[in-house]
Amino acid sequence: MRNEIFLDNSSTTRPYDEVIDFMGFISKEVYGNPSSLHRKGIEAEREIKKSRQIIADSLRVNINEIYFTSGGTESNNLAIMGYLSANPRKGKHIITTSIEHPSVMEVYEYLKSIGYTVDYISVDDAGIINLEELKAKITDETSLISIILVNNEVGTIQPIDEIIRIKDSINRNTAIHVDAVQAFGKIDIFPKSIGIDMVSMSSHKIHGPKGVGALYVNKSLKINSLILGGGQEALLRSGTENVPGICGFGKAAEITFSRLKENYKSVEALKNTLKKEIYNNIEDFKIISPDNSSPYILNIAFEGIKSEVLLHHLEERDIFVSTGSACSSRKKIHSRVLKAMGVSPHYIDGAIRISFSAYNTEEQIVEFVDALKEILGRIRKTSTKRRCKR
Amino acid sequence: MRNEIFLDNSSTTRPYDEVIDFMGFISKEVYGNPSSLHRKGIEAEREIKKSRQIIADSLRVNINEIYFTSGGTESNNLAIMGYLSANPRKGKHIITTSIEHPSVMEVYEYLKSIGYTVDYISVDDAGIINLEELKAKITDETSLISIILVNNEVGTIQPIDEIIRIKDSINRNTAIHVDAVQAFGKIDIFPKSIGIDMVSMSSHKIHGPKGVGALYVNKSLKINSLILGGGQEALLRSGTENVPGICGFGKAAEITFSRLKENYKSVEALKNTLKKEIYNNIEDFKIISPDNSSPYILNIAFEGIKSEVLLHHLEERDIFVSTGSACSSRKKIHSRVLKAMGVSPHYIDGAIRISFSAYNTEEQIVEFVDALKEILGRIRKTSTKRRCKR
Repeated sequence: MRNEIFLDNSSTTRPYDEVIDFMGFISKEVYGNPSSLHRKGIEAEREIKKSRQIIADSLRVNINEIYFTSGGTESNNLAIMGYLSANPRKGKHIITTSIEHPSVMEVYEYLKSIGYTVDYISVDDAGIINLEELKAKITDETSLISIILVNNEVGTIQPIDEIIRIKDSINRNTAIHVDAVQAFGKIDIFPKSIGIDMVSMSSHKIHGPKGVGALYVNKSLKINSLILGGGQEALLRSGTENVPGICGFGKAAEITFSRLKENYKSVEALKNTLKKEIYNNIEDFKIISPDNSSPYILNIAFEGIKSEVLLHHLEERDIFVSTGSACSSRKKIHSRVLKAMGVSPHYIDGAIRISFSAYNTEEQIVEFVDALKEILGRIRKTSTKRRCKR
Repeated sequence: MRNEIFLDNSSTTRPYDEVIDFMGFISKEVYGNPSSLHRKGIEAEREIKKSRQIIADSLRVNINEIYFTSGGTESNNLAIMGYLSANPRKGKHIITTSIEHPSVMEVYEYLKSIGYTVDYISVDDAGIINLEELKAKITDETSLISIILVNNEVGTIQPIDEIIRIKDSINRNTAIHVDAVQAFGKIDIFPKSIGIDMVSMSSHKIHGPKGVGALYVNKSLKINSLILGGGQEALLRSGTENVPGICGFGKAAEITFSRLKENYKSVEALKNTLKKEIYNNIEDFKIISPDNSSPYILNIAFEGIKSEVLLHHLEERDIFVSTGSACSSRKKIHSRVLKAMGVSPHYIDGAIRISFSAYNTEEQIVEFVDALKEILGRIRKTSTKRRCKR
């Protein structure tokens, strides 16, 4: 591997070597179809069960409340559409936030087309939802509240316990779904202790394989499947199980959760170093991520800079950052999330997302800021010259 | 690896070593998110494109007509539900066969619940659909005909060109979907030359990874997505692409298609050896697979035997076969497919599916029949004794 500085870990992460090795082993030795009656099938099923137990333990829920999917997007789709289609009498009203991930925003567009009403609660400049507004919107018709726990662009953590307390005071029948793709393996999530009904997770954000995710669904909830067939995953998700993928996810979760607090601290230190280095070396910037956001994400904007240009200058030095959500980065539109937070377009243009993993080091951060300083100096000088020539 | 004789390859296959190695390499080195703007994303996208080209070439279709999914079941769901929901005006009538895979049968049950009419064309004792019946059922309201090209339990190959000729003579607007999960990589499928509109494929049936599949959709067709979100796979299938899985699928297809004819011949020879050995060594059996079925599958029934008992005796000797479709094997119900073919319950009880891959050898077949002879002799003797005691 080249000497890469990968600071785009909210987009995806490099799998742990142990995960890759384990998946290779499973692919070679435990290649049976879990539905098969013979030993090759039973062995495969047993390995899936181990992974399911790991995921269940990490959330402190029961093993039969965890369903494997093909990823975070499918988990989000399954939670929202599966819940609503199984509970048509609970109302045609959904509440969400204005800073969700595209995988749920598109689902809402579809639901609106079939008669649902969707309210998008606004957020403040820290990305926290307006709790008064939430309170005012919940009615007897509110079937579901779906919230991104850690926002993928800026790292804002929503006060989920307070949200649930407000919800319960108005409508105890409203279900709560949490998109925890950027939270799982990074901060503690114990759905049962605070009353979250469904939790979406993704493997490749925690150094597991791509193409695997999971959904926690409280046993008391009724939910319909999206993909029909052989009835795998307790009838909720048909299709031959992705055994090596699920095992890789389990292994990644096992490693990640064994180091959760340690990783949190080291990543927090990295983020602090980064902020300090930027304050000491860079001019005309604005830190967009709020102070108490996830340490894994820092969104920062540089004045007079196009973030795409900066991204490409950085990648020339094998440093990788993002201009926002990877899922919408190719669309070249202004970040919906930053707009909702009231960031001026002037800054949105120059915003990049730096996202960490436990693989990153203090040295990488220093090297990154050195590069940033040099690049910004050069771009800004050029653009000043250009302006002068006109 | 133990000295296993794996004769359950229609259920799943052991991935090629090259596939496992390649996936490990991709996971380590090309771990970017294909949606990312920087080089790590572009590298990942490039690898996906290579795989897409391999799959497209194997069907002789265009690269932009291949969509990756999480497997054969999702491909079948996407084809049928995606097509119908995008084309509501083409009619509310669907035609299929009585010997489909569960992944489509469950979809039909759902569609019936929302107002579609589904006709299941009957089959003869070789599993071939009744073409007169098909002809009589097609109307102006027939939106879709969905056919399993190679049946998963007995290997019957449907006369798809004749089916399409009949369809075109009555309603040219009816779309044709083919579930080619057991056909892809085993027999030639050229959708454009015979007029198939959609083709479902699965990776793990051709020594690729589990958790990956593909769907061919003719560019002229309108089809809706099942999973909404970031808009990957040309808006048809959202969710971060399973890059290593897709690459593994591409590699498996590349290897498989480079040896398609050679594999076909060697597997045909295995099946002939098996039939010959059985004729020479075993008594009271009935070969259920028709003569001109796929050489990859032999369904055979033994009188007075419970297939599950036989399966477990075989697995004690590290020989693995199936009692039918893996997806329904745990349900312990009589095979719907064999019933549709008019096989008597007496035989269905004792039917096993032997399914080959290019990994199998002539020696394994001989060893299998030796074991079979010994086990059948023992079980039949015991059950005769038991009957005598009563």
